[in-house]
Amino acid sequence: MAESPLRVALLGCGTVGTAVARRLVDRADEFAARVGRPLEVVGVAVRDAGKPRPESGLDASLFTTDADELVTRADVVVELIGGIEPARGLLISAMKHGASVVTANKALLGEDGPRLYETAAENGVDLYYEASVAGAIPLLRPLHVSLAGDSVQRVMGIVNGTTNFILDKMDRTGEDLADVLTEAQELGYAEADPSADVEGHDARAKAAILASLAFHTRVAAPDVSCEGIMSITSEDIRAARKMGCVVKLLAICERRQDERGDESLSVRVHPTLVPRSHPLASVREAYNAVFIETELAGELMFYGQGAGGDPTASAVLGDLVQAARHKVTGSRGPGESAYADLPILPMAQVQTRYVIRTDVQDRSGVLAHVTSVFGTQGVSIESMRQGVRRSEDGLATLTIATHAASDAALARTVDQLRLLDDVSAVTSVLRMEGI
Amino acid sequence: MAESPLRVALLGCGTVGTAVARRLVDRADEFAARVGRPLEVVGVAVRDAGKPRPESGLDASLFTTDADELVTRADVVVELIGGIEPARGLLISAMKHGASVVTANKALLGEDGPRLYETAAENGVDLYYEASVAGAIPLLRPLHVSLAGDSVQRVMGIVNGTTNFILDKMDRTGEDLADVLTEAQELGYAEADPSADVEGHDARAKAAILASLAFHTRVAAPDVSCEGIMSITSEDIRAARKMGCVVKLLAICERRQDERGDESLSVRVHPTLVPRSHPLASVREAYNAVFIETELAGELMFYGQGAGGDPTASAVLGDLVQAARHKVTGSRGPGESAYADLPILPMAQVQTRYVIRTDVQDRSGVLAHVTSVFGTQGVSIESMRQGVRRSEDGLATLTIATHAASDAALARTVDQLRLLDDVSAVTSVLRMEGI
Repeated sequence: MAESPLRVALLGCGTVGTAVARRLVDRADEFAARVGRPLEVVGVAVRDAGKPRPESGLDASLFTTDADELVTRADVVVELIGGIEPARGLLISAMKHGASVVTANKALLGEDGPRLYETAAENGVDLYYEASVAGAIPLLRPLHVSLAGDSVQRVMGIVNGTTNFILDKMDRTGEDLADVLTEAQELGYAEADPSADVEGHDARAKAAILASLAFHTRVAAPDVSCEGIMSITSEDIRAARKMGCVVKLLAICERRQDERGDESLSVRVHPTLVPRSHPLASVREAYNAVFIETELAGELMFYGQGAGGDPTASAVLGDLVQAARHKVTGSRGPGESAYADLPILPMAQVQTRYVIRTDVQDRSGVLAHVTSVFGTQGVSIESMRQGVRRSEDGLATLTIATHAASDAALARTVDQLRLLDDVSAVTSVLRMEGI
Repeated sequence: MAESPLRVALLGCGTVGTAVARRLVDRADEFAARVGRPLEVVGVAVRDAGKPRPESGLDASLFTTDADELVTRADVVVELIGGIEPARGLLISAMKHGASVVTANKALLGEDGPRLYETAAENGVDLYYEASVAGAIPLLRPLHVSLAGDSVQRVMGIVNGTTNFILDKMDRTGEDLADVLTEAQELGYAEADPSADVEGHDARAKAAILASLAFHTRVAAPDVSCEGIMSITSEDIRAARKMGCVVKLLAICERRQDERGDESLSVRVHPTLVPRSHPLASVREAYNAVFIETELAGELMFYGQGAGGDPTASAVLGDLVQAARHKVTGSRGPGESAYADLPILPMAQVQTRYVIRTDVQDRSGVLAHVTSVFGTQGVSIESMRQGVRRSEDGLATLTIATHAASDAALARTVDQLRLLDDVSAVTSVLRMEGI
């Protein structure tokens, strides 16, 4: 009896599903030793059950189109379909039938995480989703479990490999975004429709998941302010380089305290200037890395591959082993909590540092006019630098770095700058972190 | 009843103990929310119970010299005394009395880990020791739990902050080891007796712990080949710099396969040349970082503070919360396993790349004589570089980098080089990793 296998059901058999299945077959003894009982794949739900899938290592009879039925007869269900439905319905049904579930579905968790967390708690099962953020990097369990005696102040991560590949390539070659995006698509680093990546939606879902775990507060994707990388130009990258910075798309979740000591959260995704000396600046190509600041531990960083069949399978299988161990011992891991219930600050109130690049007339009095606009809006200037007058248009680039200012004050400042006769254009407004 | 507190006993009240106690007092509500029941410190075992310790935030009546009695009346015992005895006896007694235990004691785990693991399993309690390796960095739980569905090939870590501080300072300033060590002692980065750090014994215990978890095999400190940094000269650092490398003291645990496919482990601590482009090379000052290579996840790195009161307290408190949650739910985490039981390769058989620096006579035929020694011993040369003849002694530096060779073959090569008339001295032999 002790040796009766635990039943594993897979939903989806794409790149990750195939890697997971293959490993379960090839290393059956290892999994049995680590779990305490053998794992048996009892079915794989797919769209076309007749398609041959020899690379999975599984018997053809295990493939089925009836996912609804499959989830009722498993101890652990691994969901790798992605998207909202039918994934959500299947996961909820699986948990109601007593199965623990493992998923890599960031979109679903970002949109409806709390409902899934509650279903898991109500049914006394595990819901694990390590693979949903930063792929192979063990990140969510450390954040949720290892740092449970500490207090997280800030999570700042490169959690989207596609955009990091693009920005890194732009930094190294000086190419334009459009060209690099085409290359990324050819190399398979970007989808044919890259909008989920380049518009920041993928990172936004991940930011919601990270913030929920780090701050014991329910944060959903729509709570996350989000700006993608499509407006980043090669000129932005060059200007960043001159300042000793790189541009990274960061998911930032931080705890803030107002003058009265009341806490709130800022959760946002945007292109960010990061000094080259910061550990996140050296994260190249499609790698992911997450920088965490806590009260006691100080600065931590986790680095690794954020996507791909095998790396994602590593995270999924780690979750599967843990869920299966709990099935063997009749326990469950710690669930998500939302006891802190911190308010989420509207983006207009979030304070960050900015770097604003403008094209100005090269004549006396310009600096006085520009600085007075900042002064009127209460935005404190940290440094200014004026380039040489360009022969082609007679304009000069004026770059202004600010101290921390609210998004609202900055927006008003930019609006007023645009009204100045001396200012031909505000060419770029970027936030800066990691100073 | 559900609200009756869990009893926590602390053994030791130094820097880490005080930080742990203070946090439990100051954030009692937070701990109660995360554990599911309040935590109550029921006693602190110290040498001098009469000494006032207001900084702990605890009532003076809680301090006791009777550690033996204290461990019999707690749900979780946190051991921060260090050393082998009485720590070992107290932990074993605590577990036999049904308490889960948390410890930061790498020396004890390195020496007698298996006995502790077994005691925990026999008594159905948790034994956690996240703080014992790489301080604040969540590392052991990710290795043990998150990567449980993957297969670790290699763990390569900077796990001793003192030696990293020294080597980093030597690299940045060109100073000699003795001078930097004195500075490190003045700054509190090194002990008055620095031998445990600079001779590599601290890193050795940590290597044993890492190897045990990564490879499901019992590895104790005496199984770990160990070489410290005392022989590293400023000339070694300069030579490394010329090769685009830094010198780091690394704890290396790796799985090897021989021609027949049989697996074995190499577990060792030694100064190592690491290319500046490798993520470990940029780990500065007293920071720690651990680089892990797995079959599925690929390359991962974990970075953070390796020592200090608050960082160590972060890891200890994370373990405490997890052990306490298990007490609340009546479960326990996965124990250590040794099912793989891989043999540990003697150092003489371990293959690594080497860089050998020699002083040679500047005359014709030298290179032929030197290379023929390597050829005779079957050690393949990857590159050679000869410096200019020095006016003071008429000698030139000849630096030879090898392909992977066994420690034994390399030792024979060095012995024979020393017999050559052309070779005035073999000034340095260093291993190289991360190419």
